[in-house]
Amino acid sequence: MKVSVKVPATTANIGPGFDCMGMALPIYNTVTIEETVLPGTGVEINVIADSDSIDQLSLDHIPSDENSIVYKAVELLYNSIGQTPSELKITIHSNIPVARGLGSSSSVIVGALVAANELLGRPADEVALLSIACEIEGHPDNITPAIVGGLVISSQEDDGSVIYRRLKWPENWAVTVCVPDFELSTDIARSVLPQEVPMKDAIFNAKRLAMFVEAINTEDSELMKLALQDRLHQPYRMKLVPGLENIIANLKHFDNVLGCVLSGAGSSILIVSEKNNLDKIRNVVKETWADQNIKCEIRTLAVENNGAQIVSNED
Amino acid sequence: MKVSVKVPATTANIGPGFDCMGMALPIYNTVTIEETVLPGTGVEINVIADSDSIDQLSLDHIPSDENSIVYKAVELLYNSIGQTPSELKITIHSNIPVARGLGSSSSVIVGALVAANELLGRPADEVALLSIACEIEGHPDNITPAIVGGLVISSQEDDGSVIYRRLKWPENWAVTVCVPDFELSTDIARSVLPQEVPMKDAIFNAKRLAMFVEAINTEDSELMKLALQDRLHQPYRMKLVPGLENIIANLKHFDNVLGCVLSGAGSSILIVSEKNNLDKIRNVVKETWADQNIKCEIRTLAVENNGAQIVSNED
Repeated sequence: MKVSVKVPATTANIGPGFDCMGMALPIYNTVTIEETVLPGTGVEINVIADSDSIDQLSLDHIPSDENSIVYKAVELLYNSIGQTPSELKITIHSNIPVARGLGSSSSVIVGALVAANELLGRPADEVALLSIACEIEGHPDNITPAIVGGLVISSQEDDGSVIYRRLKWPENWAVTVCVPDFELSTDIARSVLPQEVPMKDAIFNAKRLAMFVEAINTEDSELMKLALQDRLHQPYRMKLVPGLENIIANLKHFDNVLGCVLSGAGSSILIVSEKNNLDKIRNVVKETWADQNIKCEIRTLAVENNGAQIVSNED
Repeated sequence: MKVSVKVPATTANIGPGFDCMGMALPIYNTVTIEETVLPGTGVEINVIADSDSIDQLSLDHIPSDENSIVYKAVELLYNSIGQTPSELKITIHSNIPVARGLGSSSSVIVGALVAANELLGRPADEVALLSIACEIEGHPDNITPAIVGGLVISSQEDDGSVIYRRLKWPENWAVTVCVPDFELSTDIARSVLPQEVPMKDAIFNAKRLAMFVEAINTEDSELMKLALQDRLHQPYRMKLVPGLENIIANLKHFDNVLGCVLSGAGSSILIVSEKNNLDKIRNVVKETWADQNIKCEIRTLAVENNGAQIVSNED
């Protein structure tokens, strides 16, 4: 049996939604799990770069041994029904840039889980898959949209369950993803965050995230400009992403730009805007980074409303 | 000339919305400003208790001298057009319990401002009134609903301007206000709050407030149960309101209770529920407080969708 699952990239945080807001994007990894015939062959994991923009160096961040997050995902699922994974060949076709804040690791966790679940006859429902995936990833912000698609607010509760609600991204707002040629590991990006934050910053972010949800629900561009501000993670990570400060400053002149934020923990940058002047917006980013000798790939993307999908299932 | 303005009580915070969420309630103070004929009489302020539940002791918290917040409000408005207030008789008919977390001080600030503005021929628009009122009160959470009515998320920005959006309270949800016979000054309730909070609590509250807005917009009771949790102010203030912990515990058995939170900084408690079993809910609160020898007044109220209103204007 051989199952292939296609999983979207995701952008998380999106300004004030640190560790809880995420959105699926139409860039995909495909995870294929095949039962091998030879007994005792264990679990083999291979990663193949599909896209020109992903070099083999980046892919090394997906370790191909049994300690990898992919193996862990499959193991947790098998264990949940009292089994141990073996005789499996897992192949990851990778299009999502690695260590760029686009949910590459979440996508392979989700892809492996959904594929293995299919292979096993679907012992786990969505609730269980979300819970296992978040146990590995630590946060639901990328995991949830990778599984369910769209723009999602989610939370892993104390009992391990993940609750989420989908929000409807306004049709007139564009999402431009700017991927630089440098990586930023989530571990490093987390290490610069403080354990404690000023009360006023906590109030600031809660208020902004409330505005964010209201702005999304009412397609209120003026409110979204205020909403897309953050004091919990972006100020601390600013120095880890060269050019970000200048890009934000240079985009201030565009009335139709609603916000310019880190995608996840970076290094990618997400620009939310109305759907005019998109060429100019992309050029500002390209030129600002070029001034610092940073190459980049910039794409205005639709929101992907589908989460992980089984694309082939062969007996 | 004599102008009377009726201003609603307000409940603020409402769980996770510390310092930014507030809602108007149908209990009112009336502020009357009258131009007196004798020159040099300054500004006279009188407070009259209209309600049996407000004793004269409570009203002493509204100081009747020129240092009072009422005088400050009027003075700031007069100053904004280059004048100084004098020959004014201000009378406050007070129905809103004082120092109970029901926006009594916001109501008199707003009432005095709106009345004085009318007296002066409306030099200040809503934006200016909000800004002056927040300058005195320090936070927009009670002020904004007192001026505009309804359920409101609001924020005073760095430039002093107050932005707000009204949310529509679901028709099937009840608001029960439980006012104990003891006061809690906002100053004391603020003094127990830390300057810094754990990052995880900041994330927790932002997430809950986002859920709150989404739950309100979609009338999602299950989500509202998760949303009405707070880690920024309520845990620190719990010990200042005897009985609160027990009331929360005793209401856990009611499936239709969505949350039990402090109203503003307390001492009142706000219960959000579906509209069944309201008698039982009120009894649980009454009995729990009675066990601790605390008397209370408990009322299930509609949301007041009107803010401050001029009720009479005599030449």
